[in-house]
Amino acid sequence: MISSHAYLLQREQWKDLNKVASMPFTMEFDLKCTFILSAEAEGIENTIKEFVEDANKSLLKKGEEGAQITSWKKEGNILEMRIISGRKGRSHEGAIRIKKHLGSLLGKKHRIGIREVRIKEYIITFDVEKEPLKDVTIPFAAVYVDGKKVTMKIGEQGEEFLRENYIDRMIKVLQEKIQAQHYEGKKEYWELIWKSEEKKPVWDKDPSEEMQKKGWVVPGPTKGKWFYRPPAAAILRTMERIAVEEVLIPLGFQEVMEPMHVPLETWIKTGHLEGMPGEFYYISEPVSRDAKEWEHFIDLVKITKEVPIEELRKNVKIPKAGVCYAQCPNIYWSLSGKTIAEKSLPLLLFDRSVPSDRYESGGRHGIERVDEFHRVEAVYIGTKEQLLEVKERLMERYKHVFDNILELEWRMARVTPFYLQQAGIVEENEEDEKGTIDFEAWLPYKGGREKEWLEIQNISIVGEKYTKAFTIKSQKKEVWSGCSGIGLERWMVAFLAQKGMEPEKWPSGFKKYLSELPEMPEFL
Amino acid sequence: MISSHAYLLQREQWKDLNKVASMPFTMEFDLKCTFILSAEAEGIENTIKEFVEDANKSLLKKGEEGAQITSWKKEGNILEMRIISGRKGRSHEGAIRIKKHLGSLLGKKHRIGIREVRIKEYIITFDVEKEPLKDVTIPFAAVYVDGKKVTMKIGEQGEEFLRENYIDRMIKVLQEKIQAQHYEGKKEYWELIWKSEEKKPVWDKDPSEEMQKKGWVVPGPTKGKWFYRPPAAAILRTMERIAVEEVLIPLGFQEVMEPMHVPLETWIKTGHLEGMPGEFYYISEPVSRDAKEWEHFIDLVKITKEVPIEELRKNVKIPKAGVCYAQCPNIYWSLSGKTIAEKSLPLLLFDRSVPSDRYESGGRHGIERVDEFHRVEAVYIGTKEQLLEVKERLMERYKHVFDNILELEWRMARVTPFYLQQAGIVEENEEDEKGTIDFEAWLPYKGGREKEWLEIQNISIVGEKYTKAFTIKSQKKEVWSGCSGIGLERWMVAFLAQKGMEPEKWPSGFKKYLSELPEMPEFL
Repeated sequence: MISSHAYLLQREQWKDLNKVASMPFTMEFDLKCTFILSAEAEGIENTIKEFVEDANKSLLKKGEEGAQITSWKKEGNILEMRIISGRKGRSHEGAIRIKKHLGSLLGKKHRIGIREVRIKEYIITFDVEKEPLKDVTIPFAAVYVDGKKVTMKIGEQGEEFLRENYIDRMIKVLQEKIQAQHYEGKKEYWELIWKSEEKKPVWDKDPSEEMQKKGWVVPGPTKGKWFYRPPAAAILRTMERIAVEEVLIPLGFQEVMEPMHVPLETWIKTGHLEGMPGEFYYISEPVSRDAKEWEHFIDLVKITKEVPIEELRKNVKIPKAGVCYAQCPNIYWSLSGKTIAEKSLPLLLFDRSVPSDRYESGGRHGIERVDEFHRVEAVYIGTKEQLLEVKERLMERYKHVFDNILELEWRMARVTPFYLQQAGIVEENEEDEKGTIDFEAWLPYKGGREKEWLEIQNISIVGEKYTKAFTIKSQKKEVWSGCSGIGLERWMVAFLAQKGMEPEKWPSGFKKYLSELPEMPEFL
Repeated sequence: MISSHAYLLQREQWKDLNKVASMPFTMEFDLKCTFILSAEAEGIENTIKEFVEDANKSLLKKGEEGAQITSWKKEGNILEMRIISGRKGRSHEGAIRIKKHLGSLLGKKHRIGIREVRIKEYIITFDVEKEPLKDVTIPFAAVYVDGKKVTMKIGEQGEEFLRENYIDRMIKVLQEKIQAQHYEGKKEYWELIWKSEEKKPVWDKDPSEEMQKKGWVVPGPTKGKWFYRPPAAAILRTMERIAVEEVLIPLGFQEVMEPMHVPLETWIKTGHLEGMPGEFYYISEPVSRDAKEWEHFIDLVKITKEVPIEELRKNVKIPKAGVCYAQCPNIYWSLSGKTIAEKSLPLLLFDRSVPSDRYESGGRHGIERVDEFHRVEAVYIGTKEQLLEVKERLMERYKHVFDNILELEWRMARVTPFYLQQAGIVEENEEDEKGTIDFEAWLPYKGGREKEWLEIQNISIVGEKYTKAFTIKSQKKEVWSGCSGIGLERWMVAFLAQKGMEPEKWPSGFKKYLSELPEMPEFL
């Protein structure tokens, strides 16, 4: 996978889907909560009684619907209420409003405040579109399933739990998990939109294997990473130059250089941390830089010449960041809260300064499916119209590179998640504007053209997803954004797999960039 | 600090120093050890008695000196011995030899084997050159100090402890620690070897501050890292081009691309792990990539929109690697065990593909003292004569860049650790051949020329230190190695501090590379 956008987009659309899908179904909120008063005051019952009557008529109403306080009692400084609602004006929102308004009333009339509102028990029942296929769990609640009816029972929790919108997110998570059960194992939708003419490959060898035999590449000291000796490094750097000089610079993209560390908070905003936490390499800082704190560790290293694992554990912190997975999150972060001037739109940036790391398990192969790789990522921000034009022009430039410089046999495909198609929710136009296009190349070493092709890059337009997440604005209109990730190792593999490793046989467009390989150092 | 070589060299020379320094002093090894026999055989006492007499005469001798078994007793299947020695043929080596030879003898004569030899108690006494100034501790032993006499008492330990050379390393560590007490707070030796003429600076502003005001650089989301917007990225990339095109390519250096992860084992070989473990950013892999294992973590992220620290702790492994600190360790690693053909010597390689991370505490400033930076590192391997020539030619090319392209006011200094000078141990020649040269530039914003200058890069020759550590050989002669680290941010700061931020005022040599800055995006 070159970029995570296909996945992210999928998740975003999924959320939209849920929003829509859950609308027609019933929802019941049954909250038992307690208000902790500042004193055990007597004689306030009437005030409460009147408040409850009023609240049921107006404060808790949302149009015709809304929450109702169905019962209450006061013992000492504890006021307990049961609040029942449907989808609108939900009980937990009601409880927060009651705290505010009743607190103010009690303050004025009896000089009593409400210290806190707590959940005693909260039972939420809702229907889902499709019956769960297996057990489903969620933090903070027990879950009961009866056909398409799902009940979530939350035990004691403090005020923060009510305020921080945990409950709405829990409902959403539960809906998503049940929905996901129905799509497990289903593939992404894939639709060919264009393919080049067939081209006769120079050979049918696996370039990674051949380069390894020649010593051009060496498997790195840790899994899924490679060391590129001069001939291989020269080819990879040439791919970078072609991407920059033939695609990005002509379109007016400007280079930025970003930190390699991505804070986990940034990945919360982009959705990566919930999307793929098992695919990151995490970064841990030392607890201290002070040599004294490391003395025992250092002594052990010197004496045993091994890594003292337990000492290391004591001396490093829990990760707060991870290694760059894709470059766009830090680019978006760099624009957080900014309003971009009209004249700077569309804003066209790219980074090629940090390697990308993805923790892979199975499926690694050669330099094309790895844990660490080099990509150029372009990010574009502008109005919808501007982005659609950027996308067209990017596609033209990529086509120019693949047709005239690398002379590849390649194709483009629109990728859309399976269930969106099934549900028929995304409209034709919408799908054309947002979404991801994958660029793929044929790998002759894998066999005929019917075999799986290699994704070598993509273009995505993600609408307002990231501009909203990072509060990036323009003066007037809403701004969209998109990214295009160019996998340099992927370009290299596709090229070598079709054109071979002998510069004489390379296409003339490529030879203008690299006509001769640096000599390999000789080892005995 | 641009490179860690000054420090590493220091440590290496220190070890040499200790070797020399400890020679004239006495050392006593008093080992009580137990040999575990395979059976409680009776009637083997005479065999043992004869063996001990023989061993004391020959097996344990080293020339005139050697170890002596001063007493022994056998109870059940336990044979206990006390072995005393001086510096030569030390007791712990003797114990291993006894196990082998006595084991073989008992096998032949009595069909009994020796299962293991264990330390019961091991007391080692030695003189140090200078009296310890304060308490000193070491793992695996209690330490007693009486003037210049140091005693180390080791309790029960198994055979591995004897075999793995822990004891010799413990003595060395203890000697180093005591020696270090005398040099704490002392500075590195610094000797000016050349300086350019004075040059009138364009201004006296701090470039990092000015760039921050203009928005060219943005402090990163985690400490000590920066985001470079287009104008700043263009300048940094230009420094890279100048380093590559004006220094490295003309001298025949070839580009490689290395993994960003450095295994802790590699840093054991280079000495970094014992030298500066508090300065690394460590990398932790996920325990699993399986989404099922991360389900609870993911649910919590979705519901709370915070990082679930305890879940994260459970789901990441203890670090096995760190982020690149300097590029050379992975380059040396890539050549491990290789014999380089004569025709490929000197081998001249460079990497510019990975950022370098150093965990800093205080003393960060602007883009010049940071936690993450970009450097080009050149590594050269060859005969001593070849390397001395490489060094000369590198110095010429650097001089060309600083004089004719950046037009800096700069100087070169030889840096050697203080105590080596004091001790008068390193000979004049030796010092000229090995060692580190720092290149420094004046920062007008700091004040007059008497203030601290900025180290912008260095050249080191480290002799056989790394080629031995990684078993890198040539066909005939011993090979030396060296490295030169070019700090691109440092070049940039030195240049901007002296030449300002307006391209019109830049020297013509630099303008050939960059005469105009990319436009800054405009924010409101």
